[in-house]
Amino acid sequence: MKTYELRQGSGVESLVLTERPVPEPGPRELRVKLRAVSLNYRDWAILQGTYGNFARPLVPVSDGVGEVVAVGAEVRRFKVGDRVIPVYVPDWVRGGPTEESVRRRLGGPLDGLLREYACVHEDAAVAAPAHLTDAEAATLPIAGVTAWHALFTAGRVGPGDTVVVQGTGGVSLFVLQLARLAGARVLVTSRSPVKLERAMALGATAGIHTGSEPEWEARVLALTEGRGADHVVDVVGGEGVARSIEAVRVGGTVTLVGFLDSPTVRFDLARAFRRIVRLQAVSAGSREDLESLGRALAAQGVRPVVDRVFSFDEARAAYEYLASGAQFGKVVITLP
Amino acid sequence: MKTYELRQGSGVESLVLTERPVPEPGPRELRVKLRAVSLNYRDWAILQGTYGNFARPLVPVSDGVGEVVAVGAEVRRFKVGDRVIPVYVPDWVRGGPTEESVRRRLGGPLDGLLREYACVHEDAAVAAPAHLTDAEAATLPIAGVTAWHALFTAGRVGPGDTVVVQGTGGVSLFVLQLARLAGARVLVTSRSPVKLERAMALGATAGIHTGSEPEWEARVLALTEGRGADHVVDVVGGEGVARSIEAVRVGGTVTLVGFLDSPTVRFDLARAFRRIVRLQAVSAGSREDLESLGRALAAQGVRPVVDRVFSFDEARAAYEYLASGAQFGKVVITLP
Amino acid sequence: MKTYELRQGSGVESLVLTERPVPEPGPRELRVKLRAVSLNYRDWAILQGTYGNFARPLVPVSDGVGEVVAVGAEVRRFKVGDRVIPVYVPDWVRGGPTEESVRRRLGGPLDGLLREYACVHEDAAVAAPAHLTDAEAATLPIAGVTAWHALFTAGRVGPGDTVVVQGTGGVSLFVLQLARLAGARVLVTSRSPVKLERAMALGATAGIHTGSEPEWEARVLALTEGRGADHVVDVVGGEGVARSIEAVRVGGTVTLVGFLDSPTVRFDLARAFRRIVRLQAVSAGSREDLESLGRALAAQGVRPVVDRVFSFDEARAAYEYLASGAQFGKVVITLP
Amino acid sequence: MKTYELRQGSGVESLVLTERPVPEPGPRELRVKLRAVSLNYRDWAILQGTYGNFARPLVPVSDGVGEVVAVGAEVRRFKVGDRVIPVYVPDWVRGGPTEESVRRRLGGPLDGLLREYACVHEDAAVAAPAHLTDAEAATLPIAGVTAWHALFTAGRVGPGDTVVVQGTGGVSLFVLQLARLAGARVLVTSRSPVKLERAMALGATAGIHTGSEPEWEARVLALTEGRGADHVVDVVGGEGVARSIEAVRVGGTVTLVGFLDSPTVRFDLARAFRRIVRLQAVSAGSREDLESLGRALAAQGVRPVVDRVFSFDEARAAYEYLASGAQFGKVVITLP
Repeated sequence: MKTYELRQGSGVESLVLTERPVPEPGPRELRVKLRAVSLNYRDWAILQGTYGNFARPLVPVSDGVGEVVAVGAEVRRFKVGDRVIPVYVPDWVRGGPTEESVRRRLGGPLDGLLREYACVHEDAAVAAPAHLTDAEAATLPIAGVTAWHALFTAGRVGPGDTVVVQGTGGVSLFVLQLARLAGARVLVTSRSPVKLERAMALGATAGIHTGSEPEWEARVLALTEGRGADHVVDVVGGEGVARSIEAVRVGGTVTLVGFLDSPTVRFDLARAFRRIVRLQAVSAGSREDLESLGRALAAQGVRPVVDRVFSFDEARAAYEYLASGAQFGKVVITLP
Repeated sequence: MKTYELRQGSGVESLVLTERPVPEPGPRELRVKLRAVSLNYRDWAILQGTYGNFARPLVPVSDGVGEVVAVGAEVRRFKVGDRVIPVYVPDWVRGGPTEESVRRRLGGPLDGLLREYACVHEDAAVAAPAHLTDAEAATLPIAGVTAWHALFTAGRVGPGDTVVVQGTGGVSLFVLQLARLAGARVLVTSRSPVKLERAMALGATAGIHTGSEPEWEARVLALTEGRGADHVVDVVGGEGVARSIEAVRVGGTVTLVGFLDSPTVRFDLARAFRRIVRLQAVSAGSREDLESLGRALAAQGVRPVVDRVFSFDEARAAYEYLASGAQFGKVVITLP
Repeated sequence: MKTYELRQGSGVESLVLTERPVPEPGPRELRVKLRAVSLNYRDWAILQGTYGNFARPLVPVSDGVGEVVAVGAEVRRFKVGDRVIPVYVPDWVRGGPTEESVRRRLGGPLDGLLREYACVHEDAAVAAPAHLTDAEAATLPIAGVTAWHALFTAGRVGPGDTVVVQGTGGVSLFVLQLARLAGARVLVTSRSPVKLERAMALGATAGIHTGSEPEWEARVLALTEGRGADHVVDVVGGEGVARSIEAVRVGGTVTLVGFLDSPTVRFDLARAFRRIVRLQAVSAGSREDLESLGRALAAQGVRPVVDRVFSFDEARAAYEYLASGAQFGKVVITLP
Repeated sequence: MKTYELRQGSGVESLVLTERPVPEPGPRELRVKLRAVSLNYRDWAILQGTYGNFARPLVPVSDGVGEVVAVGAEVRRFKVGDRVIPVYVPDWVRGGPTEESVRRRLGGPLDGLLREYACVHEDAAVAAPAHLTDAEAATLPIAGVTAWHALFTAGRVGPGDTVVVQGTGGVSLFVLQLARLAGARVLVTSRSPVKLERAMALGATAGIHTGSEPEWEARVLALTEGRGADHVVDVVGGEGVARSIEAVRVGGTVTLVGFLDSPTVRFDLARAFRRIVRLQAVSAGSREDLESLGRALAAQGVRPVVDRVFSFDEARAAYEYLASGAQFGKVVITLP
C-alpha cells in the first residue's frame, strides 16, 4: 500500500511517499481503508522536529476517517463496511486522563493515518456521524474533541454563558460552533476583519479586532456589563494569559489549549485571586468525548468548517498551506 | 390597595377581592407594583385546600413581575423604575437546598403576589429580562426555574443529549424550550395530537402520542437506537415512574417534578439496578437559577409560551381555566 | 485443573466439583492461579436460580484474588508473580456506566473464579493491595467497589457528613469503614444488638436497634439535631425506602444498593419533594473504583472484615453459611 | 468600648488603641462581644499598607469569635448567649463566588474584629463548634475556610489521595489536618526540620526538607511511585508554581492560595499540557464552607493548632510575632 513517512531531516522534504505492506488486523482489530485525513498544527510541529522528538520513520497525521474493510475474529463493535474514525489517544476511553492512558497517540509516537490502510483496535474507533462528508468527519479527533473536552467535560458551558475564543484556528472554530450549540454567547478575537466577519456568519455574538483593540479584555468586560466572560479558551499562551484572566468573571474559567505566542505563561497571582479563577490545561480528550461530539453534531446537523481539500499526492502542499495560516477552517487530504 | 385573599372554604368562592393598606418597605426592601402574575398548578391545589394547609387569609399566587416604586434606605441592588421578578423561594439564594432556605415561599406560607403592591427583600428579587413582556416575565419563577434546575443544576443536559418530557404543562414546555436551547433532542409525550403538533413547532424532535402508544417508553428506545434517553422529566409520578426508568439509558436520570397521576411512586428495583438510574426530586430552585434562566432566554431571544391573559377582575376565571387543563402554555393575570 | 460448575437444578447440589483444561492466555491476557475467592449474595441468588438466568454449566463466583503465572505476548501492565484482582465488570474501566460496558460480568454471564486457573484481560485486573491477606483482598470487587462507588463516585461523602447504613452485610460494612475513613459520622441500623456492638467497635458513631426502634428514621433525625443524614445507603428496598427518604436531610441522597426486603419500591412523592431527595441506584463500579479503593485502604492500613474462611473442598458449606445470614463480614473460600 | 484602629502610616505604630461607642444592632443583626481573634498574614499586609489600600481609620482583623449579647427585633437564627463566629466574607453565603458577594470583607474594607463589640448580620455568622476553645474557634474564618474550600469545594480530595502542602503556615496546617481527616496521605515541605517533625506529629505521611532537597517535586514523584500527587496546595507562587505542576499527576490539581515568594507566576505551558493540570486560585470561601468545616472538626474532635495567645493589650506584639514567621500554628489575641 501507499504510505507517507517522516524520515530524517525537517520540513516537507522529510515527508516521503513510499510503500509498506497492508497491515493484518489482530483478533480485536479493524483494518480501515482511509478516506480522508485532516491536519493539525501538531502535525506541522512534528514535521519540523519542534515537537515530540518521535522515532522516524513515522507515518504522520493523527486525524482521519475510513471504511472498515476487514475485522479480526473477535471484533464485536464494528463490521465490514462501517465508516469509522480512529481515536487519536487510543487508550483514553472514558473519564479523566491518566499517565497510562494518554501516552500513546496516533501520528507520534504511534504511526498515524497518512496511508492507505491502518489497523486499529475496535475499542479505539467510533462510528463516523452519518451526516458528515469524509472530509468533515476527518476533522473531529483533535480539534473537535479538544473543544468538546474544554467546554463540556473539563468545563460546564451552558445556555446563557459567555465564551471568549481567540482566533479562528481549528480548535477555536469548533469552540465557536459547539458553544453556540449549547446556547452560549460567543465572543471571537482575531487580527483579521475578514475572519471576524466569517466568525459572525458562523454564529459569533460579537467579534473583537485585536489589531485595533489589543486590550481585548476591556472589550469583553464592556460586552458583559462589566461582569466578565464565564469561560475563555486561550490558544495564545505566554503573557496573553494575563489578559484572559482579566476577561473572566469572578469564579470563571480560562482553558489553556495552545501557545501560538509562547509556552512561557506569566501572570499576576494577585489578579488571579481577585477573579478566583480556574486555569485548566486541555490536551485532546477521550473516546467518549469523540462519541458525544459526533452525537451532538448529528442531533443538530452541524458541520465542521473545511477550508480546503488536497489530494493524497499533494500532501506536502497541504502541510505548507496549513503552515501559512491563511486558512479559515480545517485543511484536509483525501485518499484515492 | 386592591388584593385578593384566600378565605375559608375551597374552590374559587374562597378567592375574594378586598382591600389592604399599601405595605411599607423595610430598610433593604423594595415596594413592587405588580404588573402581571402567572398561575401554577400549586396555586390551584392551595385554593382547593389539597396542598400545604396554609393559614388564611392568604394572598395567593407565587409568580409575578412588577415595577419598583419605592426602596428602603439601605437598598443597593435596585432602584425605583426597575422591573423585577420576586423570587418564589426567597431564602434560597445560591447552591443546593437546605431545610432553612426552602421553608418560606411566596403564595403560601408567605403572602403571594395577587395584589397591587408587595414588599420584597432586595436579595429576593431579580431583574426581569428586558426582551420579555410582563406576561412572559411573570411565568419564570416556578415553572421556568424548576425546568432550569432540573436540566442544568441538578442535571447536566447538554448538546446531543436526548431529553424526554411528559405532556405540555408549564414546566414541560420550559423543559422543551430550554433543552433545545442547550442543544439537546427533545421527545415529548402527550395524549393530544394537537398539543404534540404545537410541541413540534416549538422545536421538539419527535412527539409520542400516549393515546395510541401507552407504552411510550418502547418508543423512546426505538427513537434512541435502543440506548434510551439521557434524561426523563417525569410529571406524572405514581406507577408511571417505572416507565420513565425503562426509558432512560444506563446511567441516566429521571427527574421527578410532579404527580399528575398519583403521589405514590412504585417501581421495580431490579429494573432500576439494570439501568443504574438516578431519580432526582426537584421542587423549584434558587435565585441563581432564576438569574441564569433569564440570562439564557435573553441571550437567545427565547420567549415563554403564554396561552391566555386574564384581567385582574377575572382572577377566578383564570383559576378555572387553569384547572380545565385546556391550555398550552401559561395562564397569566395582568394588573391594572 | 479443578473447577466448580453450576449445573442444572438449584441449591447447593447444583454446585459440582469437576475438571477442565487449564486455559491458555490470549496475547493481552494473564493466566491467574486463584488463591482466594469471596462470596456475595449474588452468588447465592444465581445458585438458587432466582437471579440472572445464566446458561449452565457456569463457573460461579465473581470475587477473587490470585497470582499471575503466565502472560500473553503483548501484556504490558503485569508480569508473572504479580498478585492481581480480576475486575468483576471487566469492560467498565473508568467513568460512568454504559449499556455496553456493564453487560459482561464474572460469575454470570461470564465464567467466574471458583476454579484453579482463570485467564483475564490485563485491562480487567488490578494489583492487589500489598497489606492485605489473600482472604481480605478477595473481598473487594463487588462489596468494596459498590460501597466505594456509592460514597465517592456517585456520591460525594466527606468529613463531617452523616451516613446511615442498614445492617452489617458485606456492602454495609465496607460503607461503614470507608465513610469513617473519609471523616464521616456513621449510624448503623441492625436487628442484632451483638452486631451493633461489633459495628461500634469498627468505628460506627451510633447504632440503631431496629428491633426496639422500627421507626429508625426518627432516631436518625434525633441524632442529627433534626436535620437528617446527608446520605443513606439502603440495602432493604421495598417500602423501607420511604423511611430512608424521611431520614435524609433536605437535598440529601439515598443510595439504593439492594432489596433484602422486596424489589418493589414504594414511597410518597410529596415526601420526596419536601426532602428534594436524590435516589441513586448503584450496582458495582469501574476498574478505577477498585484501584481507588485499594489505594485508600493501603494508605490508611484498613482491612476488610472477613468472618470465616472455608477450604476449596467446603465450597457448598460456604454457600450455606452465607445463606444463613449469621456472618459479620465476608465469607471466603481459599484455594489450595 | 475599646477598639483598635489602623491610622495613617504603616507598621505597628499605625495600630492605635482607642474608644468608640458600642454599636447598636439593626433589626436582623447580632451584637457580639468578642472573646478572641486570630491574625492572618493578610492583617500584617494591610497594616504595612502593601495590600488593599483601604480607607483608614479601619478596625483591623478578619477572624474572631464572640458571644451574642443583644439581638435585633427580627433575628431568627441566634439568641443571646450563643457563641458565634462572624463570617469573613459576609455576603458569600453558599455556592460559588460572584463579583457581588466577595467584595465586602471583615478587616478591610469593612471594619474588623479587634474591638470589644461588633454588630454582624445574623446571616453572616455561624455557631462556634462547641468542642473548641475561644482561641481555637477564632482561627477558622480565613485559614480554615480557605483550606476547606481548596480541598473539598473547589477540589475533591478523598480517601487514598495524596496531597502536598507547602510549609506550616496557617492555611497549610489546616490543609494537613483536613486532608488527613478525609483519608488522604499528606506530604509536607518545609525549610525547618523542627517544623517537619511537628507536622509529622500532626499526621503528615512524610516531610520533605526543602533545604536539602530544593527540587522537592522529584521527592514527591518518588513518594508516589512516579505517579505524582493528586493535589498540591501552593502557598509560594512565583516560579515555584512550575515545581507544583511537575509534582502533580496527570489530571491533577494545583491550588494556588498564596504568594510568599512572588506574585508573578511563571511556568512552561508545554509541561502543563503534559500533566493536563488544573490551576485553581482560592481566596477564602462561603458561610457554608465555614459551617461544614465546623461540623467536620466537631465530628472528629479535631482542634486547630494555636501557637501563642496574646492579651488584648499586646496586639502590637502579636502582629510582630506573626511577622517573625517563627510560629507553628495560629497567633491569637484574647479579649478581656
